[in-house]
Amino acid sequence: MTGIQFDGTKHMDIIPIGRVAIDFNPVDLNKPLDESTTFRKYLGGSPANIAVGMARLGKKVGFISKVSDDQFGRFVINYFKKEGIDTSHIAVAKNGESLGLTFTEILSPTASSILMYRNGVADLALSPEEVNEDYIKNAKAIIISGTALAASPSREAALLAMEYAKKHGTAVIFDIDYRSYTWQSKAELVIYYSAIARASDIILGSREEYNLMESVVAPAGSSDQETAARWLACDNKIVVIKHGKEGSAAYTGSGGVYKIKPFPVKLLKSFGGGDAYASAFLYGLMEGWEIVDCLEFGSASAALLVASHSCSDAMPGVDEIREFIKKAKEEYGEMVVRA
Amino acid sequence: MTGIQFDGTKHMDIIPIGRVAIDFNPVDLNKPLDESTTFRKYLGGSPANIAVGMARLGKKVGFISKVSDDQFGRFVINYFKKEGIDTSHIAVAKNGESLGLTFTEILSPTASSILMYRNGVADLALSPEEVNEDYIKNAKAIIISGTALAASPSREAALLAMEYAKKHGTAVIFDIDYRSYTWQSKAELVIYYSAIARASDIILGSREEYNLMESVVAPAGSSDQETAARWLACDNKIVVIKHGKEGSAAYTGSGGVYKIKPFPVKLLKSFGGGDAYASAFLYGLMEGWEIVDCLEFGSASAALLVASHSCSDAMPGVDEIREFIKKAKEEYGEMVVRA
Amino acid sequence: MTGIQFDGTKHMDIIPIGRVAIDFNPVDLNKPLDESTTFRKYLGGSPANIAVGMARLGKKVGFISKVSDDQFGRFVINYFKKEGIDTSHIAVAKNGESLGLTFTEILSPTASSILMYRNGVADLALSPEEVNEDYIKNAKAIIISGTALAASPSREAALLAMEYAKKHGTAVIFDIDYRSYTWQSKAELVIYYSAIARASDIILGSREEYNLMESVVAPAGSSDQETAARWLACDNKIVVIKHGKEGSAAYTGSGGVYKIKPFPVKLLKSFGGGDAYASAFLYGLMEGWEIVDCLEFGSASAALLVASHSCSDAMPGVDEIREFIKKAKEEYGEMVVRA
Amino acid sequence: MTGIQFDGTKHMDIIPIGRVAIDFNPVDLNKPLDESTTFRKYLGGSPANIAVGMARLGKKVGFISKVSDDQFGRFVINYFKKEGIDTSHIAVAKNGESLGLTFTEILSPTASSILMYRNGVADLALSPEEVNEDYIKNAKAIIISGTALAASPSREAALLAMEYAKKHGTAVIFDIDYRSYTWQSKAELVIYYSAIARASDIILGSREEYNLMESVVAPAGSSDQETAARWLACDNKIVVIKHGKEGSAAYTGSGGVYKIKPFPVKLLKSFGGGDAYASAFLYGLMEGWEIVDCLEFGSASAALLVASHSCSDAMPGVDEIREFIKKAKEEYGEMVVRA
Repeated sequence: MTGIQFDGTKHMDIIPIGRVAIDFNPVDLNKPLDESTTFRKYLGGSPANIAVGMARLGKKVGFISKVSDDQFGRFVINYFKKEGIDTSHIAVAKNGESLGLTFTEILSPTASSILMYRNGVADLALSPEEVNEDYIKNAKAIIISGTALAASPSREAALLAMEYAKKHGTAVIFDIDYRSYTWQSKAELVIYYSAIARASDIILGSREEYNLMESVVAPAGSSDQETAARWLACDNKIVVIKHGKEGSAAYTGSGGVYKIKPFPVKLLKSFGGGDAYASAFLYGLMEGWEIVDCLEFGSASAALLVASHSCSDAMPGVDEIREFIKKAKEEYGEMVVRA
Repeated sequence: MTGIQFDGTKHMDIIPIGRVAIDFNPVDLNKPLDESTTFRKYLGGSPANIAVGMARLGKKVGFISKVSDDQFGRFVINYFKKEGIDTSHIAVAKNGESLGLTFTEILSPTASSILMYRNGVADLALSPEEVNEDYIKNAKAIIISGTALAASPSREAALLAMEYAKKHGTAVIFDIDYRSYTWQSKAELVIYYSAIARASDIILGSREEYNLMESVVAPAGSSDQETAARWLACDNKIVVIKHGKEGSAAYTGSGGVYKIKPFPVKLLKSFGGGDAYASAFLYGLMEGWEIVDCLEFGSASAALLVASHSCSDAMPGVDEIREFIKKAKEEYGEMVVRA
Repeated sequence: MTGIQFDGTKHMDIIPIGRVAIDFNPVDLNKPLDESTTFRKYLGGSPANIAVGMARLGKKVGFISKVSDDQFGRFVINYFKKEGIDTSHIAVAKNGESLGLTFTEILSPTASSILMYRNGVADLALSPEEVNEDYIKNAKAIIISGTALAASPSREAALLAMEYAKKHGTAVIFDIDYRSYTWQSKAELVIYYSAIARASDIILGSREEYNLMESVVAPAGSSDQETAARWLACDNKIVVIKHGKEGSAAYTGSGGVYKIKPFPVKLLKSFGGGDAYASAFLYGLMEGWEIVDCLEFGSASAALLVASHSCSDAMPGVDEIREFIKKAKEEYGEMVVRA
Repeated sequence: MTGIQFDGTKHMDIIPIGRVAIDFNPVDLNKPLDESTTFRKYLGGSPANIAVGMARLGKKVGFISKVSDDQFGRFVINYFKKEGIDTSHIAVAKNGESLGLTFTEILSPTASSILMYRNGVADLALSPEEVNEDYIKNAKAIIISGTALAASPSREAALLAMEYAKKHGTAVIFDIDYRSYTWQSKAELVIYYSAIARASDIILGSREEYNLMESVVAPAGSSDQETAARWLACDNKIVVIKHGKEGSAAYTGSGGVYKIKPFPVKLLKSFGGGDAYASAFLYGLMEGWEIVDCLEFGSASAALLVASHSCSDAMPGVDEIREFIKKAKEEYGEMVVRA
């Protein structure tokens, strides 16, 4: 029992909406960014990583976003095509907008930070007119990344995509994906996160992200149970709350509570796991798996990612994740991540 | 049975949120605006007019908005004070914003148009930080004017006011009040109108305004019944749909349908009636009247307004409206406006 | 000897460039603006007033500016046409820009202030592409109003007009016309005022305006002689410095110094005189008069204006000014304004 | 005879004003940018490269600009400090501005293009308030890069710097440095280039850059002689016009004409030579050399740069340039670059 039913008559599986960027990860690791001299270029941006992740897992994946009209925009389109992701609804920016960039500082396997280029980015210039109703109508689900709400007109494009999805029975998955960039105020993000979260079917976020989203509209210090209850009382069927190294939990509308711990893993970097987690978790849901199996699959994929240099190139396939889980269970026991 | 219950423990009756402006109405009537040479200055802006209307009817009225830091801003504050309206939460703009202006062209009693000054206006510069949670908590109802949603940061301020109202059991009244100015696209207004209309308690609008609001999220050509059903299925208790000279109708969550025709009246101008209607209708609701009586009271107030030169100065008191209704019934019969 | 020679082969006499606006002057005078209830509408804006002034004096006048696409824009065009001013190079704004407005507060005959509407105004949206090289080539002189430099793209349009004038031997008259609105910083206005003043042929300004213009690029506290010398050392032929009630002075490149006092007059309001002064002074120059006669003519026209309710409608013709001078001399003596 | 005299009592030699950026040059050369996977990071931006160039030649160099408040901004400051460049007047951006980035596409030794990140860059956010009068007063010369004029408020900061320099006898060197990014229109760049070029002491630019600058204010198709004459007629003492592979020429106010051809060299990339040329040419001028020797020194430095992977790290010292010239003359003859 997955807690959610996708409409099998729709031919596209999933359409992430929002940010696609380029990650520049230092080759000379474990030093401050200003001292790093050489960088490797990867596709990046949370919704883009999830798109790659789900495509590698065999899903039929589309994408709604806007890219720059230059070599970097073309890199993105070509990369997606190579992965089998449909690029027919990725618009090309015509007013000098740039593709977002993320320079990574990997100070140590557990300490990292990022330097983002988000001024005048193409993805935030996506306009409502560039969101196609039929494209959304024909998909089982859309994923709205919270960063798409950070500025107009991308904000209105994402809200319109949600309206189309509601109108046509397409599931709405809200990945909070908080980034401080571009937001004008906390009140602003609370308002728009709430607008999506009230009407979505699945929410994915960290405990910190939920705290942020609830900071104005609810009393401070909500427990996971209270948070889950709040959003399940709206249209949501599943609420996933992540606690980093402490693991994560999924709550369902029918009262189910499922918890999981992370797999033991040797970190190369401390980011990128979330997108792998989301891809594999949603894959399981779409396969109709038990929720705890979805969580385990997500957690395994995350473990594979944080041991790699990229957040996109390293996205594993189904067999690779299964193999990883099998080995982990052989080494640490059958219940390695389950409570 | 009014269909809605206001929380009697809250000491402020109602707080309109949004536009306050100055109307310049020509003294030399019935010619094109470019030929008019002399203008009389009045307080204007739909939510401001409603504030004056309800204050004249004896209600305890507040206001949330932002005014210019100049003689016109001071005129507004002084005018409100004179009317007994609380001005403690009207912010003063500090970045050169102007008070909105409306120049009226009265070509004939039935043909008029307006020339609005809405570039860099103070009311659209109201920020979420300037919306006070306690002020809203202590009011029975807020009225959100649709024009407050037309641009940021006023848009976010209005959405935040709604969140506060929902959190504290303050009724949310949505006056669609469509003005083409400032909106970037139809998709944009559909999105934000819908966001408010899904969560409000009462909606007031013309048939054309509902058509606009529903143009993307619903099939075209909805009947009044379908429109009412759509929004009553969310949180709304009362949906009022106006048809101009054909009259208006109110639908309630409990299935009630109430219809009314306008009073016979000699027009001086064809605008301003809606704000008088809203003031008197909401007054009736707050008094706990039957809905059809609220409609009749609103219609009578509207009739008085369209025969006057201003949209604010001419707002009638309770006795004046009652007297008007009495005389109309003596002249045209007891059922003058009722079906 | 006028100190300047205009090219008699050019068929247009003069083209002011910059602001055209509407003045709303209170009918109920001598009270604070917020208490005034009735306003009369007049054409306004310094360069527009000068255009009217010179047209009434019989000159062939053009105009370069941009007006709103509404009743107020049409009012301006029609008004100019009625005055015989060529409107073929007045552009119409297409992005919702408004015509500038000036509400006048006439507290007393000597105390007045203004409330300007300059947010999103059409005249500051004039773009370089809308400035026609041939139009300028065929005029004896252009007048650049300093307010045209206050923001882009009007700033670039004015600078380009100057380049065209320099290229084709059209005289450049710089009317400093300082208004605090719209300027971002004092450094900004110093830079752009200087850019024009270095290359112009005639400068008109008050002592305060020259102080402002010189505040960064020259030592503080310049005398009129020092100021005149500074700008005559560039391309200028005549520098006019106004001292309000103390009179005014003109300095020429050949070392001439001409001073004048104002005519005795009963003020109705304390503004509008400057534009009349400029019109009549420049008229005299174009007629080849002695400079002191130009000054007297300008001063007389100013005296007529400040006794009137408008700054445009009241612009006098040649005979009216001559008549005024004649009467003043009869009453106060031949040398009434001369030192 | 250098044609220009610098004020020896001023203790700083030269202060470039404008762009400082980071270059990302591909390590996997000779392929389209979207296929390059690894990039090396270098200090970049024409005025910054010139600063490094002149510091390596032993000059006392300052810098006026604005950098991002992040690791990349700190990289720039630290790099400059290491080179002995004074960083006391480099402001730090506080509104989320980014450091400019330049991704280089090196398709072949002779074919290259760049992808610039110039949206919301820190250097264009430099404001007039951040330009210090005394800093400029105490320098022999400033170099204004044309890109600093591309947008406000950097445009006004550069124009103000010029005013300060003129006021205090500091030489103004104008490096046209045309980049299509950020400019709104050709008219705009013509206006601002002209404003600087009329008042500068030395102009450096390519034939194409002069054509662009003169495209509105002068007849098309000027020869080098006409162009030089035009700008020498203003305040300029030296006008340098570059013709790429055809060499370059310097014209002086006293009628001197000096021409030079490039040194034979094996290109690694086709950019970066200009900044080396400027550094070494200006170094020679400051040393009081004959102009033809300055040109030769500049040309030699350029030859060294285009054979290197960076535009800053590879800037040569005096001995290295001398050595290069010596070897070239041994190989190709004494008059290798001279006509």
